[in-house]
Order: sequence, then C-alpha cells, then structure tokens
Amino acid sequence: MDFVLHKKDAFSKARAGEITTDHGKIETPVFMPVGTVGSVKGIHVRDLEQEVRARIILGNTYHLYLRPGIDVLRKAGGLHKFNGWGKPILTDSGGFQVFSLSHRRKLKEEGAEFQSHIDGSKHIFTPENVVDIQRVIGADIIMAFDECPPGDSDFNYAKKSMELTHRWLLRGIERFDSTEPLYDYGQTFFPIVQGAGFPDLRRQSAEFIANQNREGNAIGGLAVGEPEEVMYEMIQVVNEILPEDKPRYLMGVGTPANILEAISLGVDMFDCVMPTRNGRNGMLFTSKGIINIRNEKWKDDFSPIDPDGNSAFDLIYSKAYLRHLFIAGEMLGPQIASIHNLSFYMWLVDEARRQINQGTFFEWKEQMVKQLKVRL
Amino acid sequence: MDFVLHKKDAFSKARAGEITTDHGKIETPVFMPVGTVGSVKGIHVRDLEQEVRARIILGNTYHLYLRPGIDVLRKAGGLHKFNGWGKPILTDSGGFQVFSLSHRRKLKEEGAEFQSHIDGSKHIFTPENVVDIQRVIGADIIMAFDECPPGDSDFNYAKKSMELTHRWLLRGIERFDSTEPLYDYGQTFFPIVQGAGFPDLRRQSAEFIANQNREGNAIGGLAVGEPEEVMYEMIQVVNEILPEDKPRYLMGVGTPANILEAISLGVDMFDCVMPTRNGRNGMLFTSKGIINIRNEKWKDDFSPIDPDGNSAFDLIYSKAYLRHLFIAGEMLGPQIASIHNLSFYMWLVDEARRQINQGTFFEWKEQMVKQLKVRL
Repeated sequence: MDFVLHKKDAFSKARAGEITTDHGKIETPVFMPVGTVGSVKGIHVRDLEQEVRARIILGNTYHLYLRPGIDVLRKAGGLHKFNGWGKPILTDSGGFQVFSLSHRRKLKEEGAEFQSHIDGSKHIFTPENVVDIQRVIGADIIMAFDECPPGDSDFNYAKKSMELTHRWLLRGIERFDSTEPLYDYGQTFFPIVQGAGFPDLRRQSAEFIANQNREGNAIGGLAVGEPEEVMYEMIQVVNEILPEDKPRYLMGVGTPANILEAISLGVDMFDCVMPTRNGRNGMLFTSKGIINIRNEKWKDDFSPIDPDGNSAFDLIYSKAYLRHLFIAGEMLGPQIASIHNLSFYMWLVDEARRQINQGTFFEWKEQMVKQLKVRL
Repeated sequence: MDFVLHKKDAFSKARAGEITTDHGKIETPVFMPVGTVGSVKGIHVRDLEQEVRARIILGNTYHLYLRPGIDVLRKAGGLHKFNGWGKPILTDSGGFQVFSLSHRRKLKEEGAEFQSHIDGSKHIFTPENVVDIQRVIGADIIMAFDECPPGDSDFNYAKKSMELTHRWLLRGIERFDSTEPLYDYGQTFFPIVQGAGFPDLRRQSAEFIANQNREGNAIGGLAVGEPEEVMYEMIQVVNEILPEDKPRYLMGVGTPANILEAISLGVDMFDCVMPTRNGRNGMLFTSKGIINIRNEKWKDDFSPIDPDGNSAFDLIYSKAYLRHLFIAGEMLGPQIASIHNLSFYMWLVDEARRQINQGTFFEWKEQMVKQLKVRL
C-alpha cells in the first residue's frame, strides 16, 4: 500500500491524498460503505460501484468468520471473489463486535472468548487468529485486534484496556509480519489508537501506535456514547502525534457533520452504518439538510428525491413515491434510501476533497455543518 | 389497443402475437410482473426494464386505492408518472383482493362493502367506481370488477356468483364506455370469465364475455385451490369460445409448467406473485429445474446462479454467495432471487414465443414441463 498527500488545507488540518492498493487507487478523504457480512445491505454490487461510486468497502471479521465461515471464504478465493466487489476492501478486526454483539464474552490476556450471537457456539479471538482470519478474507487493509472500552469508562479501566490493546498489537504485528497473503495481491495492517476520552491516554496510545511505523493508522473507541466535543478533542490530540504522511482512519464515525469536522482535524478515512441503517428507517441526508421521508409533508411532493443528488435513483424516483414505499412497507423504499444516503456520503467526501484542493475547504465546511443539521 | 396474431402453432392452440398500446408494444405470450402497490417488490424500475426485460407490469386497484390513495395518484398524473415505469400497466380490479384480503366484506347487488386490512376503514367497491379508480391510476388495461368464488364452490354458489359477475360486467362496461381517460393515452377494458370448476358455467360465462366484444378477455377464478387438471380443462373449454383474434389473459397463474401448458391451450398473458414471493423465500426457477438456495449443497458452489440466465445478476453472483445472503438474512438475497425468477419467467415466455414461431413449440413444451419440475 502507498499513500501520497496531494494537498494540505491552510486553514485547518484537512488533507487530500491518494491510497494505492493492488485493487486500485482510493482518493481521500473517503467514506467506506459498511458491508458487514459481505453485502452492503440492499445494494447490488453494480449499483455500489456505479451509483454510490464507492471506492472501498468494509467487511466485518466477526460476522464473516461466523457466516459464511472461513472455509467457504478460503474456497471462494477470498471475499472479493465471493461477493463480486473488485475494488479495495478493509476488514474490521472483530474487536468491536465481540464486545458489542456476542454473548458471555470473557477477556483474557490470550484474547477474547465469546459465544456467537447466532447459535451460542463458543469461539476465541486472539490477536494472532484475527490476522489469520483476515488473511483468509483477503482484505486489502486488515485491522489489529483491540478492546474497545465503553465511552464512560473510568481512567483506570481505560488505561488497562489501552495497555492490553497495545500488547495485543505487538502480537498482531508479529503474526502479520511473519505470514504472507493467501492470494495474488498485497495486504497491509493498521494499528488502532485507544484511550477512551482521556487526552493523556490518547497521547500515550497515539505515540505507541505511531512508533510501530505501519502504512496507516486508525483511531478507535470514539462515537461510543461520549459527547461530540470529547470526540473532536480526542481526534485533535491523536492527530498531532500520528504521522502526517500516512492515512488516518476514524472508525465507525459518523454523521455528515462529524465527518466534515473530522476531515478538518486531519482524518482521511471513515466508515459508519448510519447512512444505510438510518436510510432503512426513512431518514435521508442531503446537502440541504435531513428529510424524514415518512413525514406527511412529502405525501404529494413529486419532485425528485434529491435534485442535487449524485445517483440516477435520486432523479428517477420522487419524494412522494419514496414516502409511499415506506408507508406501504415495500422493501424498495429502504433500498432507494440506502443508495441515496451512501451516494450522498460519497458526494460529501468528494466535495470536501475538491474544496481542499481549491483552498476553500474551511469556509465551505463551516457553512455545510450548519446546513446539514437542518430538518427539511 | 390493438392485437395482431403473428403465428399459430400447428400442434397445439399456442399463439404468438403482439399487443399495441399507447405505452408501447407487448409481444405475446407475455408474463406480467406483479407490482401490487406500484413497486415490484425489491426491484428497481431500471432493473425491471433492463435485467428482467419486463414488457408490462401489473398494479393492484385494491392496494393502490388504499395506499397511496387516488388523490395522490391523480396529482401524480397516474401510476406511470408516480412509479417511473414508462411501459404498459394493467390493473387488477380489486375483486380478488376484496375477497381474499379485506375484513368483514359484505356482498351486495350494488357492490362489495369491505374494511381495509390496513386500518379497518370502511369502503365499497362497485363495478362503476372500480372503473373510475382505474381511470385515475391510468392503467393501459383495466379489469372488470368480479366476484372470485372459492375453488371448492358448489354449483349453485358458482352459478349465482357468475351471474352477479355478469351483471356487474354490464355496469362496468357502461361506465367505461361513458367516460374518458384522464391522461393523454388510451385505456382498454377486459371482462373476466368466471364459473369455478364447472365446464357448463365456464362455457356460459365465456359466451357472455365473448359477446361483449371487448379488445381482450380474461379468465379468472382459477389456481384458487382446484386440481391442476380442472384448471387446464376450464382453460380449454373457455378458449374454445373466446375469440381467437383477441388476447386472452389467465389471471394469477402460475408455476412455469402451468404457464407453458396454458400457452399450449391458447393463453397469451399471465401474471403471478410466485416468482417474487417464492424468490423471497429462496426458491429459484431455472431451465434445469428448481433450486432451494438455502440448501447445504450450495454452500461452496461458486458457479453462477444460473449460467443460462438472462440477467446480468445471474452471472455476477454465485450460488454460494446467494445462499450465504439468505442464511445471513441479508435483504440483497431476496432482491437477487426476485430478479432472477422474473427474468427466468420472461425467458420462458420469450422462448415459448420463439418455439411457436419456428413451429417447434409443442415438442419443446413437453420436454420443458418435465425439466422444470426437477429438484436440483
């Protein structure tokens, strides 16, 4: 993997860059649609490419390990061949899911024991086997196994958790560096900064992570219940330390405004279930503000879903029709809203990149952040 | 509307023809995907055109009247403008749904009183207002209001029901002929043959319907629980009477084999929820037989869903991936299976047409009917 910085904003920490992987280039800032079990919910792989214009998608180690399982993925020749997505894939390590989804998890030095949320079967994730599993999945970017402590953790818990994550990181790196990709393309490994809402811990973690000198770095454990200002402060603290010449990935964040603020703090990569999950519930993000498409006011509004939208579906379907689909419980409603929201998120990061390149990012960001919160 | 017969099969009653409407031509035999509330479940209108290659779709008066309601549809300028489908639409009259879906229905000479299955609100459908509603929906082909008696009705009930349907038909025709389309294209009106499983009643009904001399005729009240042989016998009896120079529409039928047998008995038009409903449950129809995609045997079968399939999705996705989507409960699974099944149904009627035109239909049909029932 390679990363080139094209442009740094003069009025913020925002940057425009480009990651190169064996599955193609990824212009940054970038948003990664979440394909938890190997499918971005409700969206054909072709529409993901042509309508959403996704440049990289995210898969989930925890989910893919449980279903379809690594035997099937190995026989398929990896996730790209299995789901038909030819561009880059990043896999989350499963750390977050073990702590948020699985049953009866037990944290040990060795790793995390847990029971599947599907059938109660017992498993263990270790820093080593999580690398092995991601080798089989064949993600272009694979993530270290970490513990993600709750947003309201006290200092002592957060510190112990961070130290465990650091010890796990060294073991993960050792496994990664002593193994080879299973398929005919390269893989890279990102460590994850933890430290909850404590600037001192975040600094300590960022230094530890930066010292590993990997090809990219991630910030985890944010947007897990802490106030937004704390999240922004943590990003700022961490990005002062993480090297400038490597991509920075803020995991699991967030609203369109969160993304713009984090870009202005020097983040390059994002993922979040919000555009698809909220879309399935009838919430649309647009450059003019937020639409609750179930609202009575759209009942006979026959204007396109989003006249400024990037996807063909934004113009083919009207607000009134989309509302009707949601009210009638038709699955096409969630499908359309998911594509719209993801294509809006892609527009957002693309426009941010354009504004950075032309030196107008900060002013544009300040205005957009207000606009994005308007309820239409 | 116009209908031209291109070719009659020498060894059966099968025919190849062409219907012309103001929304374009429809080659027959044809299958009409069911878009109950104005959307074919799970399928973007663009994929319906490009992947399924649908030539006409069906909407439902009962459902559309309840949601979004005729006010919205009138303001939209009709269903074509509302859902973005530019080719012909046929609307079912609502008769079948009033008797199968609604609550506390009460049959009177005037019409059918019923309570909405959605909110319990009270409504009445009459032969006249069902024409008016379909004028507002703006279907190219609108259907008469009929009573559809249960498959096991006794002779007396079936006779009374048929006679009511005939009286309703005369009222519907009067309303249709004394009103004009609301939009800038023509509409036509099909009467419906009833008579349950009784050849005498079917003959009587077919004569009554044929005598109305409309531009096309439908056969209703079949595939409602009676044995298949009875259904085929009724079609045969009726088609001996319905005029040859007008399209014949067999309502709500059926399996791929049912469709081929009915084509060989002289039917031109079909609709059925089976390809989408069964698709959503993981059942795939193919030219080699039936696939239950949830079956363990497809777990690591990475061959395309249907190598002979007509849709691009048949080749993009593998059986193993589609199985995984169903097992993991991903909505993309039902989406893919629905497109596959509909595009298979379209292939089936298109191939039947080709075989009719080259004089090989009967032999092909005999072989296919066996093949279609194989469990893969």
